[in-house]
Amino acid sequence: MAEAPHPVVACAQLDPTVGEEAHNHALVLEAISEASRQGADIVVLPELVTSGYVFESEAEARSLAQRPDGPALTAWVEAARRADLVIVGGFAEAGDDGCLYNSAAVIDASGVRAVYRKTHLWDTEKLVFTAGDERPPLVETRHGRIGVCICYDLAFPEVPRALALAGADLIVHPANNPVSAMERRTEEPLELLLTRATAHLSRVFVASCDRTGSERGVDWVGATLIADELGGVLAGPLTGSGIVLAECNLARARDKSWNVRNDVFADRRPDLYA
Amino acid sequence: MAEAPHPVVACAQLDPTVGEEAHNHALVLEAISEASRQGADIVVLPELVTSGYVFESEAEARSLAQRPDGPALTAWVEAARRADLVIVGGFAEAGDDGCLYNSAAVIDASGVRAVYRKTHLWDTEKLVFTAGDERPPLVETRHGRIGVCICYDLAFPEVPRALALAGADLIVHPANNPVSAMERRTEEPLELLLTRATAHLSRVFVASCDRTGSERGVDWVGATLIADELGGVLAGPLTGSGIVLAECNLARARDKSWNVRNDVFADRRPDLYA
Repeated sequence: MAEAPHPVVACAQLDPTVGEEAHNHALVLEAISEASRQGADIVVLPELVTSGYVFESEAEARSLAQRPDGPALTAWVEAARRADLVIVGGFAEAGDDGCLYNSAAVIDASGVRAVYRKTHLWDTEKLVFTAGDERPPLVETRHGRIGVCICYDLAFPEVPRALALAGADLIVHPANNPVSAMERRTEEPLELLLTRATAHLSRVFVASCDRTGSERGVDWVGATLIADELGGVLAGPLTGSGIVLAECNLARARDKSWNVRNDVFADRRPDLYA
Repeated sequence: MAEAPHPVVACAQLDPTVGEEAHNHALVLEAISEASRQGADIVVLPELVTSGYVFESEAEARSLAQRPDGPALTAWVEAARRADLVIVGGFAEAGDDGCLYNSAAVIDASGVRAVYRKTHLWDTEKLVFTAGDERPPLVETRHGRIGVCICYDLAFPEVPRALALAGADLIVHPANNPVSAMERRTEEPLELLLTRATAHLSRVFVASCDRTGSERGVDWVGATLIADELGGVLAGPLTGSGIVLAECNLARARDKSWNVRNDVFADRRPDLYA
């Protein structure tokens, strides 16, 4: 087996504006350039970063949706090509079936490698988007084996577990975490804890990229975090807009052993879980 | 449906001594009495609290193993009867098949309700104990529906998920967390984070009862914690020996909805997880 990659992973916690496609487009391209200048190999962007999140109507969401061969992702592919990046980011997808999807694209120098349609929709997303029917993808890139899921997907431990069992070194997680999403009884955002627990439970790196700012009365947690395979914090969280980066030694995610007698996956008892 | 119970849950973080059965027995009975005096309805004890943990040999472990109808659990049943308690604690079990098991008993005023044999063994436990072949049990008690798993079991998210899906209000988790168990890169014990994440992910209360002290060169984390169904901390952690208590409104664990459109279990997509 070839040596595992050591990519520098960047998460760009941005503040897009709903409806302002050109503004968001420029914001994203500038963040990709800046992450690349800082040495990034993999750039993670928030959920729905092309469109914003708080739609006034299904019609507004539709007017902001793009196809994977539309201008936003085409520009991301060009940016990936210029610096040999992997880029993963969320966009409102206009499906060729006429449905809208809350999607994330995995892009590298060769083009759009995968489009994942969020399979667990949060709250009013259900009024606008259709839930995807395909599993979260695992994409083999030259910067590692990358699994993708979006925001609320990560609240289902089955999702990252399946990605890790399929061989993910790194789970990237575009998110828009609204402050109002859960009854909060703790000062520390639960989202940070879930990112770290997810990493630890499957010995996999996790890069969660949240958005920031305020949009039509909704505030965002800003829970961007890069966790190592033990659940330790490599980078983040971050107040406001910005980029966090961390070098991830993905060989560590391919060693699932806790000690000579214990292994995260070999110790599983799937016959007892069903 | 009858109103859900509001039990006071106690975790007794104790410092048993390996090989000192009589000492450990007295320690446990005193802790049960003290927890009861403080208002406990459910008392959780550490893993292997009858025997201690760091055995010198399989023969030593065998000499410290008891049957469920042996003196330790018989005394726990008497204690449960006196104060109408539910008691869950770990013991080295001498199986009627000649094998040793790292087990936990669920006891109430009616007697031993369940004996669970740990299904995921940690490190040198594999040299002494046989792994159980039965799923972690869910026991309907007058103080709530209680699921049980032991220490390393909780590192498999499938385990608490299955218990919660089966209807657990509260997962009790006797543990002996050695400081050496994982390469620690964070100051906060990861065990606390896992307990809270487990609670949050399935909206279930979790009471994790660790041991404390030092035994034959092994130090213990002392990661006792009671988490509410959102992953908030109700009680613990605790330095050294002692008892933590929290009233748990188990009705909250029976409501799995985040909002009018989202439900922890109804939103699952099991067809996409296999």
